[in-house]
Amino acid sequence: MAKPPVLTPQSEDFPRWYQDVIAKAELADNGPVRGTMVIRPYGYGLWERMQAEVDRRIKAAGADNAYFPLFIPMEYFQREAEHVEGFSPELAVVTVGGGKELEEPVAIRPTSETVINSYFSKWIQSYRDLPLCVNNWSNVVRWELRPRLFLRTTEFLWQEGHTCHATYEDARDYARRILFDVYADVMVNVLAVPVLLGPKTASERFAGAINTLACEAMMRDGKALQMGTSHELGQNFAKAFDVTFLDAAGDQVHAWQTSWGVSTRMVGGMIMTHGDDRGLRVPPVLAPIQAVVLAVRDEPEVLERTAALAAELADQGIRVELDHRVDLSFGRRATDWEIKGVPVRVEVGPRDLAEGNATLVERWDGAKSPVHLDGVATAVLAALDSGQANLVREATEFRDAHTVEVATVDEAIEAGATGFARVPWSAVGTDGEARLGEHAITVRCLQRPDGGFPESADEPDLVAVVGRSY
Amino acid sequence: MAKPPVLTPQSEDFPRWYQDVIAKAELADNGPVRGTMVIRPYGYGLWERMQAEVDRRIKAAGADNAYFPLFIPMEYFQREAEHVEGFSPELAVVTVGGGKELEEPVAIRPTSETVINSYFSKWIQSYRDLPLCVNNWSNVVRWELRPRLFLRTTEFLWQEGHTCHATYEDARDYARRILFDVYADVMVNVLAVPVLLGPKTASERFAGAINTLACEAMMRDGKALQMGTSHELGQNFAKAFDVTFLDAAGDQVHAWQTSWGVSTRMVGGMIMTHGDDRGLRVPPVLAPIQAVVLAVRDEPEVLERTAALAAELADQGIRVELDHRVDLSFGRRATDWEIKGVPVRVEVGPRDLAEGNATLVERWDGAKSPVHLDGVATAVLAALDSGQANLVREATEFRDAHTVEVATVDEAIEAGATGFARVPWSAVGTDGEARLGEHAITVRCLQRPDGGFPESADEPDLVAVVGRSY
Repeated sequence: MAKPPVLTPQSEDFPRWYQDVIAKAELADNGPVRGTMVIRPYGYGLWERMQAEVDRRIKAAGADNAYFPLFIPMEYFQREAEHVEGFSPELAVVTVGGGKELEEPVAIRPTSETVINSYFSKWIQSYRDLPLCVNNWSNVVRWELRPRLFLRTTEFLWQEGHTCHATYEDARDYARRILFDVYADVMVNVLAVPVLLGPKTASERFAGAINTLACEAMMRDGKALQMGTSHELGQNFAKAFDVTFLDAAGDQVHAWQTSWGVSTRMVGGMIMTHGDDRGLRVPPVLAPIQAVVLAVRDEPEVLERTAALAAELADQGIRVELDHRVDLSFGRRATDWEIKGVPVRVEVGPRDLAEGNATLVERWDGAKSPVHLDGVATAVLAALDSGQANLVREATEFRDAHTVEVATVDEAIEAGATGFARVPWSAVGTDGEARLGEHAITVRCLQRPDGGFPESADEPDLVAVVGRSY
Repeated sequence: MAKPPVLTPQSEDFPRWYQDVIAKAELADNGPVRGTMVIRPYGYGLWERMQAEVDRRIKAAGADNAYFPLFIPMEYFQREAEHVEGFSPELAVVTVGGGKELEEPVAIRPTSETVINSYFSKWIQSYRDLPLCVNNWSNVVRWELRPRLFLRTTEFLWQEGHTCHATYEDARDYARRILFDVYADVMVNVLAVPVLLGPKTASERFAGAINTLACEAMMRDGKALQMGTSHELGQNFAKAFDVTFLDAAGDQVHAWQTSWGVSTRMVGGMIMTHGDDRGLRVPPVLAPIQAVVLAVRDEPEVLERTAALAAELADQGIRVELDHRVDLSFGRRATDWEIKGVPVRVEVGPRDLAEGNATLVERWDGAKSPVHLDGVATAVLAALDSGQANLVREATEFRDAHTVEVATVDEAIEAGATGFARVPWSAVGTDGEARLGEHAITVRCLQRPDGGFPESADEPDLVAVVGRSY
């Protein structure tokens, strides 16, 4: 059945497709103040499930949630030189409160290293207080001149973790643990987004960090999206905010720290990794609605059977929705669920029932198949499993097909126009990064030649993965 | 065993006791900007569990979570006359963004009726789109001149629900459903805080509402705390923001609305309802840590038995913590868990083991009893059940003992100095409210003489419950 084209095809205009799918799937709207975002219930449902999966793993990694204030005194930013340089241009500043001009204007947090460290310095006395690992789910503000929903908004939702450790090694290991056990695990096993892991180059580091570790994914237009970062902060903030502890030998020393975050940007990454010209394709493990049972027509047996099927699927632990909106056309409803990317549709009409069947439609590849009414739950569970695996496989194949091995910066510039290039870091260096930058290409991360995670960014023979990015 | 007095006794100075217990139980700190708050991990654990309990019930009531922006254009506030009058004096205003003076300053949300209605007007077309029920977990800012941790802070965390309905009756019923099925249920059955439910008088309504329904609790100093409110907004905001729909008869009409919220203030209410001179008493259903198993001394058998007991309690679904910090004195650790209000302590030392026992200490009344090692899980489960019930009972008895029936405003002023007074609303009225106000006493809610919930604030023969409040 031919459908009217509701979305701009990806091949025609990818950014336009992205805007279209966000609007048609009712994920988000632009806020009234430039750069802000309204996250609609279906979009928030995606975020809420990402949050829960990240939160569970953060707690398993030993960090406790806490809350630090939205408002930060301006002078806090001055204390760490690189940090102030990095964030000052993006600050939103409150100058009026309670009807009066404030004596000291306050910044709205763009990130909370400064204020959190001012409390760490009060809370930590001895090595017995370490490690101290806290996480804050919150909204932050960075003034954006070129906003894009989910990817780059003036206000966004995120978590920021902050930890203090007794030694450099403990901090280094913890930053990696978060990258691997929390972020990469959620990206791959929940979002079905394959990620490249590795340290950033010095020029791409977080303002104030000694090492930034990144999760990088490829979108369906060949561009990179940084999905999350975990920073080793060394003792930079500890020195700026006097975070010291009495070690076992009785010496007063500065703590070693990490910070790490993922944001609503993950929603954008999921959309652009899996979406196709028919809409979203939400990975089953993530999906707020994993299966929808549609009554094709307003007939008593159809309504009864669909209600029973939905109840049966719910009993199996499937997140299911029953669509009895029979006053709307079936075609319109089917298209709507397709645009929303619900992994499995179970369609039941009089013709299906006459044959003792339901029609099962998998969003992943659009395949339709008749399934006996007794076997629907089993078939849906199988489709959810295979749908998740197929999305990961497809995204991995896409990325690999759009990644080339090159030897020089010139070749990397050419390949980086349409995908990723892997180029020896020794052939790039700081000068090469500048040349790549002229073509809007950056080093996304450094890896060992076999794709392995390097001990440090200074290891010899590393490969730079380069590409355009969001 | 006599312990050093770590908290100011409640009877000596209740506000000081409140500050002490928040500091010693490590619940929160003052933020660096006046009126803001840092919620420490243990305090946030309380809030997180309140959130989960409220969230589950909000979803069961048919509302979906969404997210609306922190920034609201100043002119939005002008559109609803009472609303702007109520909130303008408390606004925080951003005038600088991205290093530049903004052409149009933006307010930080003190509540989101205005911005949410500007989206409702886009999203709603027909009666088929109703009811539309959304909820937003967020931070809001109201500039506070007399801040108090959890009770009244410039920035606080809350949820705000907003709904649109086709008729006055639907909106009225939904506002009550939230009050009863979500708020009162959580207050009583999770927080163990008995609440009085009833409409506010006209002068105590939310700015822009036609009716405000409140949950009011009595603190241990006899003062009232408003724990949550649910508002009928009538068509006031729908008219200001043009939220209309095509009804079944084909007419374009304005939606009927509600809004409702609870906040981190609930944490303060829980502290002041149950806390005693030894610290918090956290109700077992709420407690992030329901039981702690303490090794009294550093001996192998003690460490082994306590670890096994903690595992056994966890298997029973009890939220348990194992305290093996044997390098700290046992007395200090026991006091620490007592201040934190953990409902049950299971203490195991060599003397206990010699008798085949553990010592069970209930935080509710401080009772200590030996329990055979085989019966610890059963005894802990029983103590959690009875602890919850005892806290509700005790708080209800306290409130009732501090509530008197009076006939005149003068008597209400006298009784309101130490607790609640119930006085015929016909004896108070607007003039009486003004006289009560001179003594810092307000009408907390209106009720039927038997304590029942009135159909409306205009019902004859209502009783006003009056008292001082936070």
